Amino acid sequence: MRKIVTSRSSHVGAPPGTVSLKSGEKSRPARINIIQYDKDKYSSTEIKDAAQCRRYREASGVTWINIDGISDIPTITEVCRIFEIHPLVLEDIININQRPKMDEYEGYIYLTTKMLYEEEKTRNILIEQLSFILMGDTVISFQEREGDIFSPIRERIEQDIGFIRKRGGDYLLYALLDAVVDNYFVIIENIEDNMQALENSVLKEPRNSDLRRLQHLKNDLVFLRRYMWPTRDIVGRMAHGDVSLIKGETHVFMRDVYDHTMQVIETIETFQEIATGMLDIYLSSLNNRMNAIMKFLTIIATIFIPLTFITGIYGMNFHYMPELGWRWGYPVALSLMLIIAVVMIVYFKKKKWF
Amino acid sequence: MRKIVTSRSSHVGAPPGTVSLKSGEKSRPARINIIQYDKDKYSSTEIKDAAQCRRYREASGVTWINIDGISDIPTITEVCRIFEIHPLVLEDIININQRPKMDEYEGYIYLTTKMLYEEEKTRNILIEQLSFILMGDTVISFQEREGDIFSPIRERIEQDIGFIRKRGGDYLLYALLDAVVDNYFVIIENIEDNMQALENSVLKEPRNSDLRRLQHLKNDLVFLRRYMWPTRDIVGRMAHGDVSLIKGETHVFMRDVYDHTMQVIETIETFQEIATGMLDIYLSSLNNRMNAIMKFLTIIATIFIPLTFITGIYGMNFHYMPELGWRWGYPVALSLMLIIAVVMIVYFKKKKWF
Amino acid sequence: MRKIVTSRSSHVGAPPGTVSLKSGEKSRPARINIIQYDKDKYSSTEIKDAAQCRRYREASGVTWINIDGISDIPTITEVCRIFEIHPLVLEDIININQRPKMDEYEGYIYLTTKMLYEEEKTRNILIEQLSFILMGDTVISFQEREGDIFSPIRERIEQDIGFIRKRGGDYLLYALLDAVVDNYFVIIENIEDNMQALENSVLKEPRNSDLRRLQHLKNDLVFLRRYMWPTRDIVGRMAHGDVSLIKGETHVFMRDVYDHTMQVIETIETFQEIATGMLDIYLSSLNNRMNAIMKFLTIIATIFIPLTFITGIYGMNFHYMPELGWRWGYPVALSLMLIIAVVMIVYFKKKKWF
Amino acid sequence: MRKIVTSRSSHVGAPPGTVSLKSGEKSRPARINIIQYDKDKYSSTEIKDAAQCRRYREASGVTWINIDGISDIPTITEVCRIFEIHPLVLEDIININQRPKMDEYEGYIYLTTKMLYEEEKTRNILIEQLSFILMGDTVISFQEREGDIFSPIRERIEQDIGFIRKRGGDYLLYALLDAVVDNYFVIIENIEDNMQALENSVLKEPRNSDLRRLQHLKNDLVFLRRYMWPTRDIVGRMAHGDVSLIKGETHVFMRDVYDHTMQVIETIETFQEIATGMLDIYLSSLNNRMNAIMKFLTIIATIFIPLTFITGIYGMNFHYMPELGWRWGYPVALSLMLIIAVVMIVYFKKKKWF
Amino acid sequence: MRKIVTSRSSHVGAPPGTVSLKSGEKSRPARINIIQYDKDKYSSTEIKDAAQCRRYREASGVTWINIDGISDIPTITEVCRIFEIHPLVLEDIININQRPKMDEYEGYIYLTTKMLYEEEKTRNILIEQLSFILMGDTVISFQEREGDIFSPIRERIEQDIGFIRKRGGDYLLYALLDAVVDNYFVIIENIEDNMQALENSVLKEPRNSDLRRLQHLKNDLVFLRRYMWPTRDIVGRMAHGDVSLIKGETHVFMRDVYDHTMQVIETIETFQEIATGMLDIYLSSLNNRMNAIMKFLTIIATIFIPLTFITGIYGMNFHYMPELGWRWGYPVALSLMLIIAVVMIVYFKKKKWF
Repeated sequence: MRKIVTSRSSHVGAPPGTVSLKSGEKSRPARINIIQYDKDKYSSTEIKDAAQCRRYREASGVTWINIDGISDIPTITEVCRIFEIHPLVLEDIININQRPKMDEYEGYIYLTTKMLYEEEKTRNILIEQLSFILMGDTVISFQEREGDIFSPIRERIEQDIGFIRKRGGDYLLYALLDAVVDNYFVIIENIEDNMQALENSVLKEPRNSDLRRLQHLKNDLVFLRRYMWPTRDIVGRMAHGDVSLIKGETHVFMRDVYDHTMQVIETIETFQEIATGMLDIYLSSLNNRMNAIMKFLTIIATIFIPLTFITGIYGMNFHYMPELGWRWGYPVALSLMLIIAVVMIVYFKKKKWF
Repeated sequence: MRKIVTSRSSHVGAPPGTVSLKSGEKSRPARINIIQYDKDKYSSTEIKDAAQCRRYREASGVTWINIDGISDIPTITEVCRIFEIHPLVLEDIININQRPKMDEYEGYIYLTTKMLYEEEKTRNILIEQLSFILMGDTVISFQEREGDIFSPIRERIEQDIGFIRKRGGDYLLYALLDAVVDNYFVIIENIEDNMQALENSVLKEPRNSDLRRLQHLKNDLVFLRRYMWPTRDIVGRMAHGDVSLIKGETHVFMRDVYDHTMQVIETIETFQEIATGMLDIYLSSLNNRMNAIMKFLTIIATIFIPLTFITGIYGMNFHYMPELGWRWGYPVALSLMLIIAVVMIVYFKKKKWF
Repeated sequence: MRKIVTSRSSHVGAPPGTVSLKSGEKSRPARINIIQYDKDKYSSTEIKDAAQCRRYREASGVTWINIDGISDIPTITEVCRIFEIHPLVLEDIININQRPKMDEYEGYIYLTTKMLYEEEKTRNILIEQLSFILMGDTVISFQEREGDIFSPIRERIEQDIGFIRKRGGDYLLYALLDAVVDNYFVIIENIEDNMQALENSVLKEPRNSDLRRLQHLKNDLVFLRRYMWPTRDIVGRMAHGDVSLIKGETHVFMRDVYDHTMQVIETIETFQEIATGMLDIYLSSLNNRMNAIMKFLTIIATIFIPLTFITGIYGMNFHYMPELGWRWGYPVALSLMLIIAVVMIVYFKKKKWF
Repeated sequence: MRKIVTSRSSHVGAPPGTVSLKSGEKSRPARINIIQYDKDKYSSTEIKDAAQCRRYREASGVTWINIDGISDIPTITEVCRIFEIHPLVLEDIININQRPKMDEYEGYIYLTTKMLYEEEKTRNILIEQLSFILMGDTVISFQEREGDIFSPIRERIEQDIGFIRKRGGDYLLYALLDAVVDNYFVIIENIEDNMQALENSVLKEPRNSDLRRLQHLKNDLVFLRRYMWPTRDIVGRMAHGDVSLIKGETHVFMRDVYDHTMQVIETIETFQEIATGMLDIYLSSLNNRMNAIMKFLTIIATIFIPLTFITGIYGMNFHYMPELGWRWGYPVALSLMLIIAVVMIVYFKKKKWF
Repeated sequence: MRKIVTSRSSHVGAPPGTVSLKSGEKSRPARINIIQYDKDKYSSTEIKDAAQCRRYREASGVTWINIDGISDIPTITEVCRIFEIHPLVLEDIININQRPKMDEYEGYIYLTTKMLYEEEKTRNILIEQLSFILMGDTVISFQEREGDIFSPIRERIEQDIGFIRKRGGDYLLYALLDAVVDNYFVIIENIEDNMQALENSVLKEPRNSDLRRLQHLKNDLVFLRRYMWPTRDIVGRMAHGDVSLIKGETHVFMRDVYDHTMQVIETIETFQEIATGMLDIYLSSLNNRMNAIMKFLTIIATIFIPLTFITGIYGMNFHYMPELGWRWGYPVALSLMLIIAVVMIVYFKKKKWF
């Protein structure tokens, strides 16, 4: 069972904005990468000290501050302080158990969603929390781990591919969300492959482990759907113009992301219905196999029971049993048994019992 | 299991409007057919070069540009460029994994839905993506494959049957959608035939393969419903006047299409409920058959067990067993066994055990 | 399985308003009955020629044109032409596979619903399509077959019972709908009787056929609910003043019909929940019976197995088996077997195994 | 199965306001009790003749006319005539198969709901229909049977307890509804006791009858929920100010009744979920018991089968079987069998098969 | 089964505001703790006599009156009288079977929700009712039992941590609710641990008791969800500005609590889906174990049945059975049996039957 709840026990009654590492977790220094661009210019900087962010506060053009490693609480806190982010947002960025949501604050929006990875070795699905802050033309993104999911976007900015250099921070946010949602399709494809393999196994030779794999798969689908629905709502609000920081010309792009999330959700729900049907097939296959065995064995037993009864009769010790003295008694008895056996087999065959 | 997701792996992070063929897919040159008509005149042209479309941009009367073969990306791209279609629409036309939807843009609407065919040999249901662009009185339709579904409409235009020559591009769009939705009924009828055949098989003599067929059928129904719901929404918006390009007098026709989609959906959902009941019957039938066999065999065994016990008794080698020396011992023993067998059979019959 | 879909294959791509008989169906000449009344006068005429309807177009008072037999396409078409009915309505009247709906057109409303009959011999539920057109104070009703369901209303009009002669065409429409909905209760009562009979059978002695009957019943309920929901919506719209042709004073009567449809729907849904529970009882009853049999037989076998083992021991041919030579060997062995059998029976009884 | 539908067969096509007794039902003369009060005065009268109600039409203060026995159609009709009640309301009051509803008419509201009793002997739940008319400060209540449910309210009026004497007819209506809803809790408690008893039985020793009791219980819950939902809606509308006859100061009291109906509904739904779980436990318990028996018996059989085989071997009549002539052949064979039996028992024990 | 309904039998027909102890419940004197604070000052007082509350009615700054022990009816009544609380609220505070709700009255809001504890010994979940009244900057909280859940908040007030001293009564209410909701996570974590333990047990070696534990768990989840949904609605209304007593600057904090309740609800619902899957695994595991046993035993029986038949043949007493006289008859017969047994075992192995 996937661990869902992270401990908040230590948290009960704490004032809002309280941030702390989970016990046993090690803080890793965050990496801060800042990309600045407009139609004409482009620059990419790696900074060490969060305080250096301050000079990007009033920069012209689009500024994208990407922070890897949300366990580095001092850095995150410093960045939030510089951009005057609400303490509750700070808490949400660091608490990795957030459900996807978007909150509008004065002058900026905060949104958080989930990134999915497939762990290479175990093929388990890993979940990483992503947070974004859009403040005018500045986008700040927070990642749990370093990942290469945003590198194609960095390239598009650097090499001025598509519209990205011509548009503002809201378009950058769109591009980042689009990359995240497109990545869901990769996960969905893997799940589909797993389902196909499982279906083959279930149809050919159902095994005990199949049920566990099926259950595992169903739980994964429950999780995915759980993350996708609020993501859909967030993107929907941005697509339908409910968020003032998203400019009109970006709506149509957000609508595209929205369509993709809808597609992911519908695929997940279709998978869930198929998985339910697979359980029926699994149970029925198993049952059929068991029944086939029992039927075979019972038929064997049933054929021999009357024969054994006949041997029993001629094994009795009555003094006066004329058949025993007959010359052909034994061969006749054997033949009788043979005939009975054949008749029964024919009868069972005709009844299609085996 | 039907393949649902087409790979988007190569797509993650790509700028909007990126179009590419799936690996392994071959591009086929598109066929472009242009029909132009109004109350008085009619012309039908086949063009080779997408660029020739340009002169139809400002033509009077209704123009219907039908393009077969969306894998011919250069042609599609050229057409979209000529009509100044948004790059996201271009992407949607070519990506055949779109869910049915309608997007309004300035000056035109884009809508995509699914066409269903039954493959003749395998009787599998094939899904083809259809896209339509309505721009004033110009309708551009994109088909995956060449098909004859729109030929009756071509005839109606050519021979001036019904209202079609008297109305505008929105009515043409209605006529095309109506043909698509009417075609769903053909698929639904086939499914109904399959269900009826399956029901008969399940009731008469349930087989292992029936469950698989049932599951296949249920999955097909899940897919159909999945495509129909958004189609219903699209048509509903056009029927209820939410789309300015659809004129008032066409609403009542769209409402008719809407009623048909509703009917398809309700039929699908009814089928789903019936299919669920069929699973119960299947499992119960199978169980009954198995039970009948086991009962028969167990009864056989039960009848012979006491008889064999009696033969066992008189097969014992005690020196002093008076019955063994009796003149009528053997026939009496045989009769006793017969009586026991008859009594048991009568008892079982009376209890209606077989 | 009830046939749900009527073939539309020949219909794909046909222009709206196309009407045609299903193959194999024979056209029957329609009967047209016209009743005209107001506070003071009443007349009832049977006409032969649809063209005669024309003079009722502008008649004063309430006119009720009842047409039996919608397979007489020329007549229906003629009537629709006289009253300037939209071609789509004509198509809907004749296509008997309509789902219940109401469409408002300029100057008139069209509504169609289902009438349910129980076929006397087979006790199957038959479904007939009814269509109504309300145009000012003129009501045109279309029935598939001749039926006596509206005769009480004819009597009420003729004998001036209740309000009917004092009110307009909308009240007449209410009276007709009320008769239709009241008739559903007759069907519902029959279903209830069937369910009660089935429940008794399932509880006393579950049979294979019960499951089929139950499934049949469930499918019937699915169908009924499917027809009732849209009927409820239609009546609801007329009750809540959304339809301008229904005058304010008739709203309260429509609300009454609305309450009745709600009651029918809730009863159907209650039946569905009860039917689901019945399936559990059926399966469990069947299982219990089977288990009881198997248990009985297995116990018989289990009692005899050790006894037969003992006979086997004393059937062995060892030379030195002192018991065989004992004077009381045989009676002791028999007694031993008796004691074992009794002990086992007592043990099984005490364990409540049979 | 509880009888849900009362026959309306005789009713089809009858004009609205038609009231008639069900066949087999005897009319009982109604008892009319009239209580009149305001801050200062109180009077309670029993009247014989419905016509006497007339003088209470324009009385000052609050008038509560309570009528026991709705089968006395002439009296009910007379009362409705005096207060100018719509014929449809009259029909609804007498037809005891009404679903809970509230209808607003000019100058008065009509509402009907269900009263639940537990029959003392059979512990079945009886359902009685209650109707109320609120017309200014006059409340008319119609009960199917005489009951003592409203006596506490009579006392509160007589002895001037709480607000009741200080408020108007709408507060009286609230008090009556509150008594009705509070009474549901009594029923709910009884159901809870039944469920607890049933759960104990199912866990300890599942019996055939338990399933029937469970099904009975589930059906009762379905009925209760069916009555509660519309009751909730009625009370909700009165609580939220949608009903002009309910004054503002009474809203908060209606809100309290509303909370109680919500609580009843949620409890019912919780019970339904628990009952579903109980079915799983029942089936699983039954299965376990059956399995335990079969396992025991099969193990017995399995132990003896190899032993009997050995006796069979030494029961063979071959002339040259050296073991037969051995001095210790018999004891050795017996010991061998004992050893085999012990080994098998130990093996089964170790495998935890019994 | 958890007891859901508390007896209201004695309550039917009682006037609103009637409060009484349940029979068998002992009244415990309430503890009243009053904390008063603003930016600059802080005081905490324990009072004995409820009447002393009166002087805090018009106090400046924020006043938090915490009352432990709602069974002390006179005290609660007195407090409500002093603050002019509506009698219905008084009734709701004392009746511990309230569902979570918020009612707005003139000048104050009343809200009640549930606090969850895990009883240390039995690890059962205990439910305690909490009520809050917010009247301007005065918060009155009512607890069933003394608990330490609010002590961190007392500390935050005393030591001026976070915003709490700078804000009004609505922020205090937020802080209290936040502590309550955070506490739900503790319960949820415990449930998760239970589920994980149960899953391991079910997968390794399913036991009878597992089903009961699972059912217990499912019922607990039903209860939790039942309490969470209305809590969510209450917090949602306060977060979205529907409650005028909650100032704008507190909305964002309430929104945070709202997010947490959503997270709790989604976790509960995920648990419910997982628990349903666990039932499938449990039943299937049990079935597999049973099948394995039966299969093993049946195979044993099936192998010995033909062997026993052979011994039967050579146990027959026919005079002319040539094999009996053969020198090698016995060893050959034994070898034959061995061969048959080996062949059968090989066959079963190949078929993977054991």
